[in-house]
Amino acid sequence: MHRLVITPRFYETDAFGHINNTVVAGWFETGRAAVFELFADPDRPAVMPLILARIEVDFVGQIYYGADVEIRTRVGDLGNSSFEVLQEAWQKETLVARGRAVQVHFDHATQRSAPLPDEKRKLLEALR
Amino acid sequence: MHRLVITPRFYETDAFGHINNTVVAGWFETGRAAVFELFADPDRPAVMPLILARIEVDFVGQIYYGADVEIRTRVGDLGNSSFEVLQEAWQKETLVARGRAVQVHFDHATQRSAPLPDEKRKLLEALR
Amino acid sequence: MHRLVITPRFYETDAFGHINNTVVAGWFETGRAAVFELFADPDRPAVMPLILARIEVDFVGQIYYGADVEIRTRVGDLGNSSFEVLQEAWQKETLVARGRAVQVHFDHATQRSAPLPDEKRKLLEALR
Amino acid sequence: MHRLVITPRFYETDAFGHINNTVVAGWFETGRAAVFELFADPDRPAVMPLILARIEVDFVGQIYYGADVEIRTRVGDLGNSSFEVLQEAWQKETLVARGRAVQVHFDHATQRSAPLPDEKRKLLEALR
Repeated sequence: MHRLVITPRFYETDAFGHINNTVVAGWFETGRAAVFELFADPDRPAVMPLILARIEVDFVGQIYYGADVEIRTRVGDLGNSSFEVLQEAWQKETLVARGRAVQVHFDHATQRSAPLPDEKRKLLEALR
Repeated sequence: MHRLVITPRFYETDAFGHINNTVVAGWFETGRAAVFELFADPDRPAVMPLILARIEVDFVGQIYYGADVEIRTRVGDLGNSSFEVLQEAWQKETLVARGRAVQVHFDHATQRSAPLPDEKRKLLEALR
Repeated sequence: MHRLVITPRFYETDAFGHINNTVVAGWFETGRAAVFELFADPDRPAVMPLILARIEVDFVGQIYYGADVEIRTRVGDLGNSSFEVLQEAWQKETLVARGRAVQVHFDHATQRSAPLPDEKRKLLEALR
Repeated sequence: MHRLVITPRFYETDAFGHINNTVVAGWFETGRAAVFELFADPDRPAVMPLILARIEVDFVGQIYYGADVEIRTRVGDLGNSSFEVLQEAWQKETLVARGRAVQVHFDHATQRSAPLPDEKRKLLEALR
C-alpha cells in the first residue's frame, strides 16, 4: 500500500464550508501516481501506456480544511489487460472517502488495449 | 433531460494533450446544478438539503480542447430518501463520458437522511 | 474587444461563500484564448509561440455564484516582441476584477523572444 | 520567511507539458495560509478579517511535473490597514515564479478597511 499526505488547500473548499467533492477525484489521481511510475518511460514522459476507464468515489464523511488527509492506494484485481486501483482518504483517523479506478494497459501505436507483461504484473502485485 | 454546453478551458488540459479526467467530475457537478436548484432555499443558500453519496464516471473517449462538450443530465431511479442522477458528456456527436451520482436528501438539523417530500419527487420526475 | 460569458461553477466557490480569487486567473486565461487563436498553428497545436511573462489581477468586488460573469479582453500596448492584454470581469453590471497580462512572442527553436511579425501585429491591433 | 513544499500534481499540468500558469496563483494562496493563520478567529472560521486586493505573478521559468516546488512567503511593506506579501516559487534550486499580494485588513461589520492593530502588526513583522 502507498500512503500520500495531502494538506487541503483553501481554494479546494466550497461555499458549504468543506472540501468540495470534485477535489477528491484529483487527490485520488495524485495517489495513483505511485502506480503510474511503474509504467512511465523516462524517455517518453508524454506517452503513458495506461488509460483510465472508470472511477468510482464513495463520499463517506465530510472533509475539512485545516487537517491533513492521508490517501491510501493499493492495487486490487489484475485482469488480462487491465487492473483495479483501490483507494481510501482518511482525515483525523476517520475514513472520509473510498475510491476505485479501472486502468487499462494501452498500446498507443495500435490504439488497442494490450496484455499486462509479467514484469509489470509483478510490480503491481507488490502494491496490493 | 437538462443540457449544458461547456467550452473546455486550456487549464483543464493535461500533459497528455487532452482534457484531464478529473475535470469531468467538475463538469458533471456543474450539470447537476439543474437538480440542486430544485432543492435550494433562496433564504439559506449555504444549507442545501442534499448530500453527494457516490459518483461513478466511465471515460469512453478522449476529450479534446477546442470543441464544445454537451453535458446531458437526467434523474434516474428515485428511492425513499435518495435518487440517482445519470449524466453523459458528448463532444462532436461522440459520447465521451458517462456518469452516475447518488444524492441523498438530508436534514441538517437532525443530521440524518430524510424522505423525499412528494413536491420534490414531482420536480425530480420531470427531469427523468 | 472580445467578450466571453462565464457561468460560475459551484466548485469554484470557497468557504467564504464567494468565488475563490484564484479562479479568476483561470477565467482570464480562458478570455485570452481569443489572443492565442491568432498565434496558433493548426499543424502544431502543442507549440504556441507565446509565453506568459506576468499577470496582475485587481479584485475590485466580490464575485458570487448564481449570476453570469462577462470577461472582456483587449490588447493593450504592443512592444517589439511582447504585448499587454487588458481584461475586466463584470457581474450584474458591476466591475468585479481587472487583469493585465504580459505575453512574450517566443521562438521555441532558439529558446528566445522573437520580434512580433507585422502580420500578427495587425491581428493584435484589431483586438485593441 | 515561511517555506511550504508542494509536489506538483498531474492534473496541474497542461497540454504544453508543464505546470499551467494559473495553478501558481493557487499555490501562492496556499503559501499565504501562514499569514491567514495570524488573523483567523477559531470561533468564526468563515469570517476572516482580510480581503485580497491584488495579486501579481512573474513567471520566470518553466515549472515541471516530477520535482518538488518550494513556496517561500514573507511579509513586505506594512501600511495603515493593508500589507504586502512577497512570494517566490523555487524548483531544483531555480527561481521559477515570483508573486506579490496586497491584503487589506477588513471589518466585515462595517464593510470597511480597518487599521491593523499593533498585536497583528507584530505578528506580521515576525514574518518579514
